[in-house]
Amino acid sequence: MKRLASLLLLGLFCLSTNAQQALWSGASVVSPEIHEDNSVTFRLRAPKAVKVQVTGDFLPTQSISVGNGMTYDAPGVADLVEKEGVWEYTSAPLASELYSYSFVVDGLTMRDPSNIYQIRDVSSITNVFIIKGNPGDLYNVQDVPHGTVARRWYSSPTIGYDRRITIYTPHGYETSKKSYPVLYLLHGAGGDEEAWISLGRTAQILDNLIAEGKAEPMLVVMPNGNANQKSAPGEDERGLLPAGNPFAGGNRAPQQPQFQPKSSYELAFPDIVKFIESNYRVIKKKSARAIAGLSMGGGHSLNISKEFPDLFDYIGLYSAATITYNMGDRDNNPIYQNVEEKLKVQFAKHPKLYWIAIGKTDFLYTANVEYRKLLDDKGYKYEYFENEGGHIWKNWRIYLSMFAPMLFQK
Amino acid sequence: MKRLASLLLLGLFCLSTNAQQALWSGASVVSPEIHEDNSVTFRLRAPKAVKVQVTGDFLPTQSISVGNGMTYDAPGVADLVEKEGVWEYTSAPLASELYSYSFVVDGLTMRDPSNIYQIRDVSSITNVFIIKGNPGDLYNVQDVPHGTVARRWYSSPTIGYDRRITIYTPHGYETSKKSYPVLYLLHGAGGDEEAWISLGRTAQILDNLIAEGKAEPMLVVMPNGNANQKSAPGEDERGLLPAGNPFAGGNRAPQQPQFQPKSSYELAFPDIVKFIESNYRVIKKKSARAIAGLSMGGGHSLNISKEFPDLFDYIGLYSAATITYNMGDRDNNPIYQNVEEKLKVQFAKHPKLYWIAIGKTDFLYTANVEYRKLLDDKGYKYEYFENEGGHIWKNWRIYLSMFAPMLFQK
Repeated sequence: MKRLASLLLLGLFCLSTNAQQALWSGASVVSPEIHEDNSVTFRLRAPKAVKVQVTGDFLPTQSISVGNGMTYDAPGVADLVEKEGVWEYTSAPLASELYSYSFVVDGLTMRDPSNIYQIRDVSSITNVFIIKGNPGDLYNVQDVPHGTVARRWYSSPTIGYDRRITIYTPHGYETSKKSYPVLYLLHGAGGDEEAWISLGRTAQILDNLIAEGKAEPMLVVMPNGNANQKSAPGEDERGLLPAGNPFAGGNRAPQQPQFQPKSSYELAFPDIVKFIESNYRVIKKKSARAIAGLSMGGGHSLNISKEFPDLFDYIGLYSAATITYNMGDRDNNPIYQNVEEKLKVQFAKHPKLYWIAIGKTDFLYTANVEYRKLLDDKGYKYEYFENEGGHIWKNWRIYLSMFAPMLFQK
Repeated sequence: MKRLASLLLLGLFCLSTNAQQALWSGASVVSPEIHEDNSVTFRLRAPKAVKVQVTGDFLPTQSISVGNGMTYDAPGVADLVEKEGVWEYTSAPLASELYSYSFVVDGLTMRDPSNIYQIRDVSSITNVFIIKGNPGDLYNVQDVPHGTVARRWYSSPTIGYDRRITIYTPHGYETSKKSYPVLYLLHGAGGDEEAWISLGRTAQILDNLIAEGKAEPMLVVMPNGNANQKSAPGEDERGLLPAGNPFAGGNRAPQQPQFQPKSSYELAFPDIVKFIESNYRVIKKKSARAIAGLSMGGGHSLNISKEFPDLFDYIGLYSAATITYNMGDRDNNPIYQNVEEKLKVQFAKHPKLYWIAIGKTDFLYTANVEYRKLLDDKGYKYEYFENEGGHIWKNWRIYLSMFAPMLFQK
């Protein structure tokens, strides 16, 4: 009977349409394998391949020209070596970090079939792994109390339709009687309400910082910052359409029809605050509200906080698109008009923290220098952090890890 | 200024480490493209490939021998044809359904780089697409009010540690004053608390059935059914370890240490009911509780409902591992002892619905025939549904779509 049970349990696996691949395919190599010294071995079984490479941000970046004098930093590439059909490459010992990578097999980018951990960034999906230590331990799940992550829909009467939103509530929220402060955390261009929770490891960072007593228990609200979207790809009635890339032109057909927002995202932002404050047990005070964002979301944070100067006492601009502050009549959006007057009003109200962070090689570095000069010229108080690197998630996770502990201090 | 803004916005994309792939890689073909007649074209740019195939459940299944007279049904395979570096295959018109597929390039299984939609089944990840109609429309997000999906942790004192759980609350739950009934929905072997919400499309099915007035608004609670796990891979303190496959032997090293449960999952199930009923606004009555599961989870539903005969008035066994009912002393788990006496007690209490569903080619079909014979011999009342096909998610989505409307009728 015991043998029959084992056979049947085996059968539960074998006969599942997809699951049998793990059993019967030849993909059963270990990859990535992280060694004691934090070097990492990547393996791919590909007996017929001519050339196998691995590309990722664990390798030194390479500068690639895209014409017109513009360059961009692309992840480095390394060759794997073949032995009996299995290709292999071992990296140098790596610093603690969350890294992403893909294989390139005869020119074709593909995921590592031995690694189920992936993150989507706009319309690219890469594998990920974490090297323990600092900051990697902050990005991994630890044996600490965990918050709850909810995907929910809220009504935005100002924009004109319901929209999807991701909400982190700290451990204990559901059973405690206390009210909590709120961090509104905004993504960049091409991102959506999934960006911070997946690429940003927000739940892990907050769980860990709160457990260590380094950050106050707080809600983190991650909206979709594209007014002409309701949700991340596949989560609204347009169905499983190509994710597309709004800047990639027409090569991502079929058409992805956009919704027609009645307002800009920035001007509609109070809809989100109102939704949170009428649906969650939160503190409804300026001193218990923070807003921060990366890149476009940094621009949003700049603009929303000055447009509604009584809402937020903590403002974080991570690699922010500060250029928008002087865009004049862009899109006829009032948010871009009378910017200096509005900043004057905002800073006269003395926000508790106005924090600007950027990497030295960020393409928005100069724009941030200019914006800081404006603040300096007016004598507006802000704090500034600068580190290595460019316009990348590695930096945005670091900025969140630094910003969250500064919030809502008594 | 407008031109500068455009350049900078372009920069926001180009300089993101990953996002530039969508712009600068050669992956910009459309795939899958669903035509008016529901035929589907798959495309892959792979100029150096010698042979490109597509495999998926949209193709007729093939029976593959695994020795010892055992066979399993594998997805069919079709060849793509190359033209100027782009490989292409167009399917026959397809019936409405959610389908999964992968490319096979020179023997190497890979995802479709043009399609961001993927589902993980145990340790296999495949792309997916949906053909509209019936039942596909039920699996797609529609323009209807949406429920909330939360990933949360609960305490299981009986098992001995906190565990992760997925909870669907219907639209309006947060703002209404009424109390709701609850469906506890259990996954199969190798699955976890992500299986039903991703592979099962539970949120879409419930949103759509409730909006059409075909199902009562209800909570759907999707626990992790493996007592020796806390969570899905990557979501607990073991970190991003290989997902592994508990039945695949030693070829998925490094070791995945298991936690040490103090109890079986089945006997600990009241921990989950208690957690839900003390944390959510639900009706705490047998007539407002349902339990259903697929495969191993069908066996769990059978066993839990008979072990706690006052808990559930609605029981659903989908392709259930009913064989467990006479496993005697397996694992010394009391749940497998005195089964017939316990069934007698359960059925004497007249559950409102005991529903058994299975596909004609399911490898558990005979076991279900035997179990139904036992029920028939005793005169226990149940309902039975049989359809085509085997032990596959296609059937489990259908069973959920049929089962939910039968629940909690006044």
